Parts: sequence; C-alpha cells; structure tokens
Amino acid sequence: MSLPSYLRDQWWSPASDEGAAEVRDASTGELVARVSADGADLAGALEYARTVGQASLGELTFHQRAVLLKRMAQVLTERKQELYDLSARAGATRTDAWIDVDGGIGALFTYSSKGRRELPNAQVVVDGPAESLAKDGSFLGQHIFTRLPGVAVQINAFNFPVWGLLEKFAPSFLAGMPTLAKPATPTAYVAEAMVRILVESGLLPAGSLQLVSGSVTGLFDHLRLGDLVAFTGSASTAERLRAHDSVQTGGVRFTSETDSINASVLGPDALPGTPEFDAYVKQLVVELTAKAGQKCTAIRRAIVPAAAVDDLLAAVRSRIEERVVVGDPRAEGVTMGPLASREQRAEVLRQVARLVAAGGELAIGGLDQPSVTRGDGTLGVEPEGAFVAPIVLRFADARTPEAHTVEAFGPVAAVLPYGSAAEAAQLVALGGGSLVTSAATHDPAFARELVLATAAYNGRILLLDRDDARTSTGHGSPMPHLVHGGPGRAGGGEELGGIRAVLNHMQRTAIQGSPDLLTAITGVWHEGAAAETDGPHPFRKSLATLRIGDQVQSEPRRVTLDDIETFATFTGDTFYAHMDEEAAAANPFFPGRVAHGYLLVSWAAGLFVDPAPGPVLANSGLENLRFVTPVSPGDSIRVALTAKQITPRETEDYGEVRWDARILNQKDELVASYDVLTLVAKE
Amino acid sequence: MSLPSYLRDQWWSPASDEGAAEVRDASTGELVARVSADGADLAGALEYARTVGQASLGELTFHQRAVLLKRMAQVLTERKQELYDLSARAGATRTDAWIDVDGGIGALFTYSSKGRRELPNAQVVVDGPAESLAKDGSFLGQHIFTRLPGVAVQINAFNFPVWGLLEKFAPSFLAGMPTLAKPATPTAYVAEAMVRILVESGLLPAGSLQLVSGSVTGLFDHLRLGDLVAFTGSASTAERLRAHDSVQTGGVRFTSETDSINASVLGPDALPGTPEFDAYVKQLVVELTAKAGQKCTAIRRAIVPAAAVDDLLAAVRSRIEERVVVGDPRAEGVTMGPLASREQRAEVLRQVARLVAAGGELAIGGLDQPSVTRGDGTLGVEPEGAFVAPIVLRFADARTPEAHTVEAFGPVAAVLPYGSAAEAAQLVALGGGSLVTSAATHDPAFARELVLATAAYNGRILLLDRDDARTSTGHGSPMPHLVHGGPGRAGGGEELGGIRAVLNHMQRTAIQGSPDLLTAITGVWHEGAAAETDGPHPFRKSLATLRIGDQVQSEPRRVTLDDIETFATFTGDTFYAHMDEEAAAANPFFPGRVAHGYLLVSWAAGLFVDPAPGPVLANSGLENLRFVTPVSPGDSIRVALTAKQITPRETEDYGEVRWDARILNQKDELVASYDVLTLVAKE
Repeated sequence: MSLPSYLRDQWWSPASDEGAAEVRDASTGELVARVSADGADLAGALEYARTVGQASLGELTFHQRAVLLKRMAQVLTERKQELYDLSARAGATRTDAWIDVDGGIGALFTYSSKGRRELPNAQVVVDGPAESLAKDGSFLGQHIFTRLPGVAVQINAFNFPVWGLLEKFAPSFLAGMPTLAKPATPTAYVAEAMVRILVESGLLPAGSLQLVSGSVTGLFDHLRLGDLVAFTGSASTAERLRAHDSVQTGGVRFTSETDSINASVLGPDALPGTPEFDAYVKQLVVELTAKAGQKCTAIRRAIVPAAAVDDLLAAVRSRIEERVVVGDPRAEGVTMGPLASREQRAEVLRQVARLVAAGGELAIGGLDQPSVTRGDGTLGVEPEGAFVAPIVLRFADARTPEAHTVEAFGPVAAVLPYGSAAEAAQLVALGGGSLVTSAATHDPAFARELVLATAAYNGRILLLDRDDARTSTGHGSPMPHLVHGGPGRAGGGEELGGIRAVLNHMQRTAIQGSPDLLTAITGVWHEGAAAETDGPHPFRKSLATLRIGDQVQSEPRRVTLDDIETFATFTGDTFYAHMDEEAAAANPFFPGRVAHGYLLVSWAAGLFVDPAPGPVLANSGLENLRFVTPVSPGDSIRVALTAKQITPRETEDYGEVRWDARILNQKDELVASYDVLTLVAKE
Repeated sequence: MSLPSYLRDQWWSPASDEGAAEVRDASTGELVARVSADGADLAGALEYARTVGQASLGELTFHQRAVLLKRMAQVLTERKQELYDLSARAGATRTDAWIDVDGGIGALFTYSSKGRRELPNAQVVVDGPAESLAKDGSFLGQHIFTRLPGVAVQINAFNFPVWGLLEKFAPSFLAGMPTLAKPATPTAYVAEAMVRILVESGLLPAGSLQLVSGSVTGLFDHLRLGDLVAFTGSASTAERLRAHDSVQTGGVRFTSETDSINASVLGPDALPGTPEFDAYVKQLVVELTAKAGQKCTAIRRAIVPAAAVDDLLAAVRSRIEERVVVGDPRAEGVTMGPLASREQRAEVLRQVARLVAAGGELAIGGLDQPSVTRGDGTLGVEPEGAFVAPIVLRFADARTPEAHTVEAFGPVAAVLPYGSAAEAAQLVALGGGSLVTSAATHDPAFARELVLATAAYNGRILLLDRDDARTSTGHGSPMPHLVHGGPGRAGGGEELGGIRAVLNHMQRTAIQGSPDLLTAITGVWHEGAAAETDGPHPFRKSLATLRIGDQVQSEPRRVTLDDIETFATFTGDTFYAHMDEEAAAANPFFPGRVAHGYLLVSWAAGLFVDPAPGPVLANSGLENLRFVTPVSPGDSIRVALTAKQITPRETEDYGEVRWDARILNQKDELVASYDVLTLVAKE
C-alpha cells in the first residue's frame, strides 16, 4: 500500500497503488515504499487549513505556540532512533541522520526559545518605534505584523526530510499559519514517520499540519492571496512553480531556496603550515562527504591561491584516504553513504562528465563504480547501490563558465586557482548568487575586503580561522538563528534567521491613528493615550489586575548643588560637568553644573517605587534611555511611569512588565525618557 | 525636438522626432512636448551606473549621502515654482502640485534626517544582535546589510512625476545604489525639469542618477543579478514586466506598487452627527477630487452601514456642490483639474460604464462632458480638455464582483452597504490586496476587530476619529516614514517605510566568524574581540584617535550594607529588596538584601569616568541594560568599558560613541551589561 498522507487530521491513502512511485534502499536497491497521493483532495486540505487550522492556531499566542514547539521537540527527541533507522535506508550515515533529525529538532527548540524571548505573548508584533506624524502627538504611525490568513505550503528536497520540514514548520507554526507539507518522494517515508510521531503526541492543534505523500499536481490552482509557498530544490523546478498565475498575479508569496554553486576561499595568508590551511582542508572533506555531498550548501568551488593548489590537493587526497570509508551506512566504520538513488547517481556522473568536458581534470576520484563496504561488512562493488566516491576536479582556467554554473549534486567539488584578493571575490560572484561562501583566513583586511565585495552575492558567509576552527558550526550547516537562502541562483529567498522567518509568514502594515486607537490595536501603550491614575499604585497590582495605561505620577523633587555633590562623592563620578561650574559652562551642551543623568534616573526610581513587598518582584533592566534636557541646581524633577506592555510567561508564575518612564522638569520639559523592565507576579 | 534624457552624466536627445509621443496640455489640448528615447544606449547607461555610479556612491558613507539629499531638497525648494507651473499643464491644481513637488522634497528631507539618525556613518548596516554560536564565545553570527552591486531602475506612473521619482531615489541613493529613472510619458517633462534642477545643482555624484525620457524597450534584457526594478503603475504592466527572464530566473529584484481598489469604512459608531461622520465625508471628497482621483491610493470603495448610505450620499453631494470647482487649474477658484489626458478620460468613462453595467447606480455625477471653468475664467464645455466631474456610484449588492475589481482611475468611488463588522472586514478583503484602507471610528473594539481582520490585506490602514481628524495626513498620502505598497493586487511590494526602503536596496547576509573578524568587518566591536587597555584613558581620546576596542578596566569596589542604605536614603528608593532582609530573601530572585541596580550603574560610571575636561562631552543615553546577577553586601564590582561604535556627525564637530559596559562581581560573574551613549569631540 502507498505511504499514507495526513490530511484534515486523518491518515489517508489512495485507493490503489497504480502509478505509485517506487522508492528503493539507496545501498541495496530493495523496495522500501510506494508513494502516491493520487486522488487526494488537495483543495479540501487547503480549505481545512485556512478554516480549522487558522482558527485553532488563532486561539493561541506566540508564547503558547512556542511552548508547544518545545514539547514537540521533546517528543521527537525521545523517538529519534526510529528516524535514524529509517534514514539509513536512504543512505544516511549516523552523522548524516544526526544532522537531519537533531538539526530539525534543534530548529524547534530554537524557535520555541526565541519565540518566548523575542516575541510578545500576544498575536500582533509591533515593528519598530511609533512615528510621530503630528506636532501635537495626536496622530501617529506604527507598523505591525499580523499573520497571513492562508496556508503555508512546503515543497521540500529529498536530502533532509526531517530538518527540511521542521525548519519551515517551526516559524510558520509560531506565526500562527497552518502548514501543508509535501516531502520529496525518495525520502517521503522518513518525513511520514516524523509527522506520525507528532500526530501521536496529540500536541498538534487541529489543522495545523498536513502532509501530502506524493505528487501535488494541480495544487497551485487552488492557492490564493494569503497563502505562501516555501520551495526547496532545483532552480529549474523553482522557476516552473514561480511562473504559476497564483504567484505571478494571484498574490501568493513564493520563496525558494535552490542548491547553489557555493564557494570556499583559501585566504592568501592561509598557506600550508597554518591552522587556517588545516581547517580549510578538514572542512572541504567534511562538505564533500557529509550526506555524500547532497547538500544545497555543500562546497562546489574551492577557490585557492594558485601556488597552493598542489599542496591543497595533496592534503585533501590524504585526508580522504585516511578518513573516508564509503559504504552501506548500516555497516561498521562507514563514514560516507551512497547517494539517495541510482537515478541521482546517474545524474551526478552526467554533470561530472560535463565538468570534465569543459576542462576539469579529475584530480581525486573518478567515474567508475567504487568498491564499497557492504551491509554485511564485506568489500566490493554493489551494483544496485547508488555509490560514488569523492571527486575533486581541477581547473587551470578559474573562469571556465561550467565551473560556476554546473552542479553535480553529490560528493563533487572543483578547485579553482586565483591570484589577487579582487580576483577571488570576482570568482565567488561568478556563481550568480549562493547560499553560502566560506573563507579560511586570519587576516582581518582580507576578510573585510572579501566580505564587502561578495556579501551581496551570498546569503551567508563563514570565516574560518584559528580562533573558531574548533567551534565553527561548519560551512554547510544552516543555523536556525541565521538566515538561510541567497540571491540569484540560490533562489532569492530567506528562511530561518530567527524571528525573521516568523515575520516572513506575516504581513507588515502601517497603522495610522490616534494614540488611543493604536494602543487598543497593538496592546502596547503609546504616548498620548489615555492613562489611569486613580486606584491603587500600579506596583500593588499583579498581572491579574494590572492594565496597560495604569500610571503613577510622582510629586516633584528639587535638585540642589548639595545633592549633586553628595551623589558625586558617593558614586565617585566627579565628571567636570557636575563639579566645575566654569568648565561645565564651557561645554556646548550644559548651561553650567548639571545633575548626573544617573542621579536623575535613581531619584526617579525613588519617586515611582512603592517599597513594600507586593507583586513587583524585580527591576530586570532598562532600555532606550535618552537624556534630553539637562537639570541644573534649583530645578525640580517629577516622573510619570505608565504600564506599557505586559508579557506573562507561560511556564512561570510571573511575567515581564515594560513601563514607559518620563522625567519632566518644573517647566514640563522632557528631561529623560526610557523603558523600565520589571518582573511582576501573576497573582 | 524631443524631451532630452540624462544619460552617462550628459543630456541626450534622439536624432529625430520620428515616432515620438506627443504630450498635450490636459486642459486645452495644446502640444506640450514630444517624448522619445529612440536610439538611446540603455545597456551603456546601465553599465555606467554599475561602474561609475557605484564607484562614486561607494566613496561616501550613509551620512555623507544623507547630507547630499538634504542639500538637493533645499535646491528643489528654492526652485519649486518652476515645477508648479509645469505641473498645471498636466492638469494639477496648486494643491495637486504641492502634493507632488513638496511631497517629493519632503521624502528627501525625511531620508536625510533618518539616514543620519538611524544609520551608522559607515557603509555596512548591522542587523540585529550578534548570535552566540559557541559556548566559549569564539564563534558568532551577525547579520549585515551591504548595498546591491547594480542599478536601481525606476519605472514610474504619470500621476506624481516628482514625488514618484524622489521617493524611490532617496532610499536608493542613501543605500549607495545608482538610479536609472523612466518617468511616464504624459508627465515626463515635469520629471525632466526636476532632474535638470538636480543636475544644475552639481550635487549629484557621477552616475548616481540617469533619466530616460521615453520608451525603455529592451532594457530588461540588459538587467542582471544585483540590479533591481521598482515599478509603479497598472497591475497588467507589472505582470508583463515581472514575467521577464531577468526577474524570473536572473535574480533581478522586482518590486511593484500597483493601483488598488482601496476601501474606506464608516464605522458603525460613526453615524451622522458624530465628528467621525463629518471627517469621513470630508476625507472622501478630498480623495475623489485631489489629483482628479488619479491616485493609486484613492478611495474606490466607501463601505458604509446600510442605514447610513442615504445620509452619506446627501452629505457628499452637498460638500461637492459647496467646495468642488472643476476646471483649468490656472483659473482662479478651480479646486479640481482635468485628468492627465483625453485618453485617460476615455478609459475612466469606459470603466465607469462597466461599473454601471454591473449594477452600480450613478448617485452623484455622470458620464457627460461637464461644464468647467476655462483658463480665461469663463464657464463652458472644453472639448479638447480631459475633464470629468466627480462620480459616486451606489451598489445595492455590496458583493458585486466588479465593485471590488474594476478600477476607474479618476474621480470615481462606489458606495457599498454593510451589516456587521465582520461583513465590513470581508468586503475590505474582497479587494484582493490594497495599498490602504481607512476607517472612521472612535470605537476601540471595532477598530481592533477591523484592523486584525484586514491588516493582512493592506499595506497601510488609517484610523480617523475626533482625536486625529484635524492632524491626519490623509487616506491617500503615503508618508516617507511608513511603508507604501500592499499585498496582492496592490503589487506585493514595499517602498518607503523609513530605513526599511534603504535596506530593500541592500542584501542581508549572515556572517559567521570569530569576534575579531566580525569586528573588522562590521566596524562594531563584538564581545570577545581584542581590546586595547594600554595607553591613555579612552575618555582622553577624541574621535581622531579613539579606536574601536579601546577599553578601560576599573579597579574593584566593595558594596556594603551601609552603601545600600545610604543610596536608599538619598534616592528615596526604599524598595524592600534593598531594605528588608527577610522580605528580600522571600523574593524568588534575591538571596537577601541586594544593591539597587541604579546604585551599580551609578558606581560603574564613577569607576570608568575620567573626570577632567576632555573630548568626552556628555552622556546622552543608555541602552539594553540587563541586570543579570544580584549584588549582595560584601560583594565587589568592577566594570569594563569598551569603545563599540563610533559615529562622527558630518555637520558637527562631535559625534556619538557607543560603549560596551559590563559590570562583573568578584567571581567574574556578569552583574549587568549595557551600552553607554556619549557625545565626543572630533578633535
């Protein structure tokens, strides 16, 4: 029977296997699964997501969704061995499976953590400061993000069935957008197993995740404004999908991440004998062999000082001989598995042949079927397996177009010589846009020159040197914290990058209006909005009773020269602007001796604090403090403190309260403004 | 002779006028200009921008470019009467021309100001905080923005020849990207005059601005990765341009802002007799008549409570009768000019006829040639003029598809009745994505419901009520501070929005590396990077000698209970965590009585300040303060202060220095971290 799909919160399989794709074990050729979604109601699935999925996710705040992501990550962690075992059938070594499975789980953990630390416990994200659009403060502009009202469609690549799905699911879920995922056929059974674990966990809100195991022909006809598509795979497929009317004129967002001809530059300072040279060689071999080179981020172009090419090839050759054992990943000692399928192998060899025809010399490896370690531990050729040994080509002419445009999606890289730093940068740019470029260098000037000249052609640049060689997360590893995607050939999309990916599932809208209405819409108090000064001191209110706009207005307090001197003596801050009338008056900003800024802020706390034990537990920080008007002896100050934003923590019995603080002088001029951050009990 | 183009820093005209478009006075039909760029070397112009333009802009920092923008704005201000006079020929009243000319100049001023306040005085923008990727701090991730290496191509609409060019030019110039602008033919002579003023000012760096007065057929064939296109105009033209290979597969960024079927909702609370009703009527008439309704942001759909439709129409009718005088804008008393051309008039009437055929009833105005005020002040029909009087249609069925999809780009709006708030939101969404929706309401609950339900369909939402009716900048006015553009039918692009538009001309790249290399690349000191503690105290260094990484490490200072009590008495901050051992120990975050956070920060200043007069002029603020570890009596603290970022001001003899401050305790645990902002003299 064909691999099931998960649609409308139910497992579903096609009525017959007719026409189903057959997926075979990458090492042995055994049949693993049949894949078909023939007859699936895709339009119904989309509508289910837009109604049931949007509704169930819409009942949750960002923090509540983030907590669910963490629990999903924990459930997957408990059952990850099941996924490792399945992954081996697709040719993944234990290390490869770790990258995929633990990498995916890591994305869930990171988004859970970032969602709670960097997003409000709400459903609207406020973007940037309010813009004042009227002199009297009665009309403001404020950008907000709200979730897209549709469904996030994933179309994924075969190489990372778990990570690929989860790295897109996590930010979509956090944003509040339901997902419909379509894994690539060759590893759809791994994705299916992972989704099954999530379904069995009972953690998925209704309609928040659906899975199509099979073709999604016709799906795009049912997409509409408010939906988005996140595609990972080949540039040619991306091109075809992007051309659909729903994207071109229907307003469907389309983001793509396509495999690119990534580069790795050996710096002119990173010659043999340096730690940077060793780190470069090690990284290059890792990128050649991890996942048998089937990574959209793998190094395809090693851009190397012309004089170092021979040494580099020798070092790479010897490291491969020492470290790389090609074979069935289930056999002991194997460090590099087969490609995902025989078809994939044929395709890689076809592209290598193109590179050779263009002038590439086979410096390491070749086109013959390699002898490998079979599943039973014996050595020999496995005719039904999809094995290719590592291949390194060498080009005499670094500007050979094919070296920058032909991709062999396997354990294949080309070495290209360069002369000057400017030339190295030009070679990087010839890739036409890459997901990632790395450089081994300990020379800050070279690093700066290369980065500034090539950043516009790359989504990510990794700098490898003696300081980070041991801790580097690696050229080929997208991190959930950092954007993944690149311009041009790399697809022009952006995924991950922490909260940036969440916002990519939302619409930014500029809202203009009065402070009161902007406060009502954002849940964040805006200057000029109504404030409540009646009732108990706001420090006497727990999160259960505190409201945005609750305010305390202090009495005024007069600052004397004696106060300034007392503070200077106590703190040791005897800066001349506080201590020396003549020198202070000569300063362009002060009329004469003035109070310390820290005195004003300290006194302000004395003026607004309610000292007895109560729900306010601690002052955790302060932000955006600006000193606007200096305070001279004889001036007096007062402070207004207003509850600005309330962020209960889901898993604690307290939360954060951000207060708007404004210090004014006796003429009602603004002396200082800032946000005070506090922790406040829920009850 | 045809209108000249400005290419490769020279004025250029085609060899002959053959095939040139004839542009006629909108009121009288007189020939105003011939427009052709036949034979222009567009590929050469692009390459000139990519080489000469990129090089000249690349020599400047953001602040230097910002200063130039301000000077350009001043030059245009001095000569704006010339532009008003020309604009009248295109049918613009003085108010219309003010929107266009002063609006465009305002964008330059705003970008100049924001560029200097919100961008570093450098060429790289650091995006977000550094991400820690290794426990020992040796490997970090940091997003940066660098300018795109190509040319920003503008393709503009006819309605705002000055604003349309300048609102795109300002952020592009600030980003460091040269511009090639193609104005719309009917008003190309106004854009040409404006560019001529800029050229004559001598302020334009070589290659930073080029103008094509005429067709740009074939231009897209020469675009490539690193270029971008910003299009404003019809959805159908946007669709055609977007389909070009250079955009679909060549990596050229394409952003479009297309006229949309914008809505304005009268809130259920905003009934006749309320200030909101009056504000709504006034705004609707303004949007109908300003620029004779030829604004991509104009109100096309007035969504009104069913019971209020008659009153609304009566109020709009009487306001039009009182206030609107249609005619030649050069005649005294005229408040609404003709459309831009006779062709435009024919097209508008064709679309009105479609709306009528779909069920729209002509409630105000009609299809006949109106009697107008002619240039000589007489009244009558002007057969060669492009006049249309304001037209309001009324639909009984608010869901009539044509009411949400047919655009008559002139003084035309439709009134659609609604019942519930949910229905009003659904009607807004039926527009399929809009630049702007406005709502007149003083009800925070309705405002919130409407905004949350419709924000994903809008680039901007304006809320009109009694508090902001007098200060509102208006439904139809994009502000440089706020994003302009919307999803779906509105084109899916984003322009303006302050610095957001600058970043849209740059590439975001994640940089991974050691703190030293990230510091070298960004010009911002990263934690863990080398610091210089030898030499004079950094407060003794002016901007001429101060370097990123210059650091002062203080001696430790012990905190006693007496200190805490002294501080409490002095400041009045007697919060129990500082004063009451038992209550403090019961607090989940404190071991017992602890020092005030403000005491620690005040002491830290005392520890790092060098008090004598010198280059450090003032402490202007503090950011991102977090209290990490509480300090108990008997603990001691010390502080490390490191120069993190240096921002000289272009037009002052001082600049900002941002310092990284870290307070540590006697166990080297982090007590608090923050940024100190200071003003420091250049010499």
